[in-house]
This record gives sequence, structure tokens and C-alpha cells, in this order.
Amino acid sequence: MKLRSTLMAAAALLSFSFASSSTIAQETYTLTLAETWGPNYPILGDTNRSLKAMVEKMSKGRLQIRIDSSNRHKAPFGIFDMVKAGQYDMGHTASYYYKGKLPNTMFFTTVPFGMTAPEQYGWFYFGDGMDLAQKVYEPHNMLSFPGGNTGVQMGGWFREEIKSIEDLQGLKMRTPGFAGEVMSDIGVAVTNIPPGEMYTALERGTIDALEWVGPALDLPMGFHRISKFYYGGWQEPSAELQWLINEDSWNKLPEDLQETLRVAMRTAAYDMYIQTTHMSGEAWSRMQEEHPDVEFRTFPDEVMDALRASTEKLLAEMAEKDPLSREIIESQAEYLQKVRPWTNIADRAYLNNSTIE
Amino acid sequence: MKLRSTLMAAAALLSFSFASSSTIAQETYTLTLAETWGPNYPILGDTNRSLKAMVEKMSKGRLQIRIDSSNRHKAPFGIFDMVKAGQYDMGHTASYYYKGKLPNTMFFTTVPFGMTAPEQYGWFYFGDGMDLAQKVYEPHNMLSFPGGNTGVQMGGWFREEIKSIEDLQGLKMRTPGFAGEVMSDIGVAVTNIPPGEMYTALERGTIDALEWVGPALDLPMGFHRISKFYYGGWQEPSAELQWLINEDSWNKLPEDLQETLRVAMRTAAYDMYIQTTHMSGEAWSRMQEEHPDVEFRTFPDEVMDALRASTEKLLAEMAEKDPLSREIIESQAEYLQKVRPWTNIADRAYLNNSTIE
Repeated sequence: MKLRSTLMAAAALLSFSFASSSTIAQETYTLTLAETWGPNYPILGDTNRSLKAMVEKMSKGRLQIRIDSSNRHKAPFGIFDMVKAGQYDMGHTASYYYKGKLPNTMFFTTVPFGMTAPEQYGWFYFGDGMDLAQKVYEPHNMLSFPGGNTGVQMGGWFREEIKSIEDLQGLKMRTPGFAGEVMSDIGVAVTNIPPGEMYTALERGTIDALEWVGPALDLPMGFHRISKFYYGGWQEPSAELQWLINEDSWNKLPEDLQETLRVAMRTAAYDMYIQTTHMSGEAWSRMQEEHPDVEFRTFPDEVMDALRASTEKLLAEMAEKDPLSREIIESQAEYLQKVRPWTNIADRAYLNNSTIE
Repeated sequence: MKLRSTLMAAAALLSFSFASSSTIAQETYTLTLAETWGPNYPILGDTNRSLKAMVEKMSKGRLQIRIDSSNRHKAPFGIFDMVKAGQYDMGHTASYYYKGKLPNTMFFTTVPFGMTAPEQYGWFYFGDGMDLAQKVYEPHNMLSFPGGNTGVQMGGWFREEIKSIEDLQGLKMRTPGFAGEVMSDIGVAVTNIPPGEMYTALERGTIDALEWVGPALDLPMGFHRISKFYYGGWQEPSAELQWLINEDSWNKLPEDLQETLRVAMRTAAYDMYIQTTHMSGEAWSRMQEEHPDVEFRTFPDEVMDALRASTEKLLAEMAEKDPLSREIIESQAEYLQKVRPWTNIADRAYLNNSTIE
């Protein structure tokens, strides 16, 4: 935290007679924030700009946030290390980017065949999610907070229709992270390609398929112009971003500003889920109008069953290796078993009765 | 707003040397809040207690909220009038309770066959919802903010299975509000009974069916002990509560405290949606374990079609009568047409692939 050793003098505009004017001496705190995203990145970056605006207005400028995008700090996947070391007070990233360094970070973003966004927020805020995240991040001198949800991510863009598990075997697909491991386990030739090169790779046939996010962020990438089949998601039913905060920086804040920051993060995270819903709605509706040849598909049951079995196998391997992994996996599985039957009779039943397609 | 003409003297704990001690003079504001609910009402009342805790901590006590439950103010459905008159600074209620007084209030709670909670929050915060709400409430000297969502409400408890539209005709059912009008339009003998008398009425056969909320609030009422069929919802896919704030009270608050209140309301409202998801999950799972004879059903297609047709007819009648009604109805319908196809390929497709029942 860059503590400004200056006083912010604010004239207290008191309306009653015996205190017509006064001076308030208050300390100003500036938190530096490194985001994984480039400057002005839609949705993901909007979330930080909205957080900054809220805390600065609520605190009347006593708490400031200075945002550095990846063009400044040059380390989009170095947020974990930079915040841990105190190089930045806080960061905005996705927990599962650090799975290679710390496998248990993965669970706080999303898990294939796992919870939807409202279910996962339930686990975080009314179940054991926040405590378990703290168990993972505390040894690294950091606090972790949910940082915005993309909702159900799409299964990806495919040039050819997938009719059987054989159609996937040997297929060259860009799909990173744990979903990539699962895809690889069932025979997909998984490859990782930086976002900036994905379009060209798909166009030239270097890859046959790719997975990005959903309509709001996929439409600007133009994949629908070179691939026709848009598959439903299984791999990231509720990708939650995160804010990491250096514990020393957090502890230096007075309690009122800690709460101001906590509540603003909570609102900004929920807002991102709603903003994604809104923008995906607009983008998918535009895509359907302008590119009626794009076809939505879901994978055949045998593919889904194979992906589910591989997911369970890989999770069981993680649980074997580490007691904390097991604790998190079991907590998520139990929560899902309890909440999903409700989602089924509420949201699923309602949506299945919808006459709007 | 009860403005305390006292100064809150807070010792400023400044850590740097040249300002070791100081006194901050600050004004304290106390907002009085009347809630429709009785004292300590679960979920709905929790939302106000959570709001109070957040604003008081964030403002370091400068903004206080004093909550009066219905046992104190004796006017659970008088919130609109009391806040309008400035008798209370703010209230927590449901907009559609005031449909008899002001028909356009109805649309800001929920509409049969309308938007789900994330869709509706999209309409409020990223579409035209907030502006349209202001058009309705401004002439009454009030601001209106979303106040927490129950998610999809269940269609109700029925002693007998509904196999056709004839089974509903003449059936005595407790179902209030606009859904009651729709039910009445297709031939149900609709009756309104205060919550405290519902159980007895159903047990004695004074009514054959009733609609309340969902598992979290239905389970404590015990309806599952005297009726076996639990029907999926169509009438309130996303009931949103609301905070009403007297405009003069709002204008007296300094900008930082307005923003503190706005952000806290936004978080508390979202949180209620998640808390309901959590508690409904727990309650439905308990109900299934302890009362395996309870059966979930959805109405047959011909019933759904009739309910949908009646809903559209009644909405069209409202649109005929008032240009602002038409504007709101059209805004909601357009938003739904745009966002639902996305919900279908995202959430619906994902949930339909779930193997958890």
C-alpha cells in the first residue's frame, strides 16, 4: 500500500448552526491493483473500473485504487507472485491460472460439470467456499475474494459437427487448463495458443476447434465467420474471477475501509455476472440475426459421459495426492448434490417450459 | 431522516508522526426503515439486517438504520404510503403489493412467464428497468431500488394431481396478486387468505391448493404434511423485493453516504437471491429425505398454454389503458426475447445435461 503522508483536508459541510464550518483531517490510502487483462478490456476490466469508482465515491476519496493493466506490468499470469510479494497491493485474475504452481487454486474458478454461478456463490458465501479459499491463500500471505462470474462458458467453436467420441479423437483443439487435461484424456490433441493467434490458427487449419468464453467475448473475435458449430458448455459452468489482496496491505486499512472494499468487491463481482448475461444475450441475438448459419449443438451423450468420467478420474487423482484437495473436492460435490435438485425443479423446469427459443 | 444534532467525535488514529492525534467532527444520519415483514423474518428480514450492518460499518457509524418490523408500525402493506409521506425514510416491501393503488408498480417484482433473476437484474441494471421504475415512483416522491430476489417461486401445493385444465376449474386456491387474476381467468376459484391461516384452511379443505414461495419458506409452514403434489412455477419466476426511499430523505444525505447506501442495497439484494438458492437447496433436500411421498410436478402443456394466454390477455388490457404500462410491458418483452435464447443455450442446455436429479 502506498501510504500518502499527506493530509486530505475536507471542509465539513455541516448544516446546523453551531458547527457551520470545520476541518476534517483524514488519511488517504492508495491501493495498487494489477489486472491480468489488457487496458480497457471489456467486462473483465470493466469490473475493476467499477470497483474503483465505487470505493472512491463511498470513501469520499479516502481509499483510492490505481489500476495497472498488463501493458504496464507485463506479467498477466504473474499476479499471484506480485501480490504475494507486495509488489502490488491487489490483483484481478483467475485463480485457476496458478494451478501449475498451486493445484488447489483451481477449484475457486470453476470445475467441469460443477456448480452454476448462483450455486457457486451459494457455496462461497453461505457454504464453505470462502473458508476453503482462505486455507489455500493464507500461507501465501493473501486474501482471496470472488471477482466476477462469466456464467456458463460455451464448449467452443468446431469446424465439423461432433457426432461421436471418435470425431474428437485426434482433433486439434485449443482449450487450456483443467478442461484441456480432460479433453486430452479422452483423446483430443490439445494445444495452447495465445488469444491473439487463435483466429488465424483456426482459419489456417492449425487447429480444428477452440474454446474461448461465450458470445459477448467470442463475437468480437470473429470465430463464427470460419466455424459453424457452436457447442454448449460442460467445462466451465461458472468461471469466477478473483481479487487477491496482500494481507499486509489489507491489515493496514482501517476497518471501515476494509468493509468498503469488501462490499464493493462483492457488488462488482455480482454485477459482472449480470453484465455478462446482458452482453451475451445481445451478442448471441446479433449472431443469430447476422449469421443464421451458425448452429448451436450439444455434444452427444457418449461424449458427455466420457468427459464426465475423465473429470471424475482426474479429480480423484488430485484428492489422492493432497488432503486439502480432497476436502475442497468433497465440499463442492456435497454442495452440488444438495443444491442441484432445487435448481432442477426451479430454474430448469421453468426454462424447459419456456416458449421462447 | 432523523438528523441527530450532535457531533460524533472520533479520535483519528493517524500513524504518521506529524499528526499523532486529531479530532474529526462528523455528522451522523439515522434512517428509519419500515419493513413489511414481522420481526426476525428469515431471508426477507435478514436482508435488512445485513444492509444495516454493512452501511454502519462502512460509514463508521455516520449512517445508521433503525428497522421497524410490522409488529411496530402495524401497516405491512402501508410501506408505500408511509415512505411517500416521510413517516419513514425508507421501506422494504414488494412493489406489486401496491398494484391496487398504482398498477404499474406490479412490473418491478415479477411477471408470469417473465424473466428469471439474472435476466431481470440485467434488465434493471443494464437495460431500462431502473429508469422505468423511477418513472413510476418519482411522482410519488420516492426512489425505488431492487431489494432481494427469491428466484423461481414454486407453483404451489395441491392435494390432488392436476391432469387437465378441467381439474383446475372450480378448484379453490389461495394465490394472490396478478397470478391470482390469471388463475381466476382460467376458472380457478381464487381466494386470498392471510399467511397465518393458510395451513388450517388447506387442512380443513376450505381451500384445495395454495401458493406460497419455495422450499426455504414453505418447509417451516408444513404444507407437505397435508398435500402431496408440489408444482413447478410459472407465475413468479424472479420475485424481486424493493427498497423505497423518500426522495427528501435521500437528498439530505451527502453523496458519499448515498453511494454507501446504494452499493450496500445492491449487495444485500444479490445476496438474498443467493441465500434463497442456498436455503431452498437445503430445504428441498431435507423435504425429499423426510417426506419422500412429496412429488414434484409441472402442469400439463394445455394448462401452461391457457395460463400463458390469459397472462398475455391481461397484460394487453393493461397496455391499452396506460401508455407507461405499455412502455414497461414492451421493454420487458423485448429484453426477454433478446436474453432468453442465450439463457437457453447456456443454463438450460447445461442443466439438461446434468446427471444429478
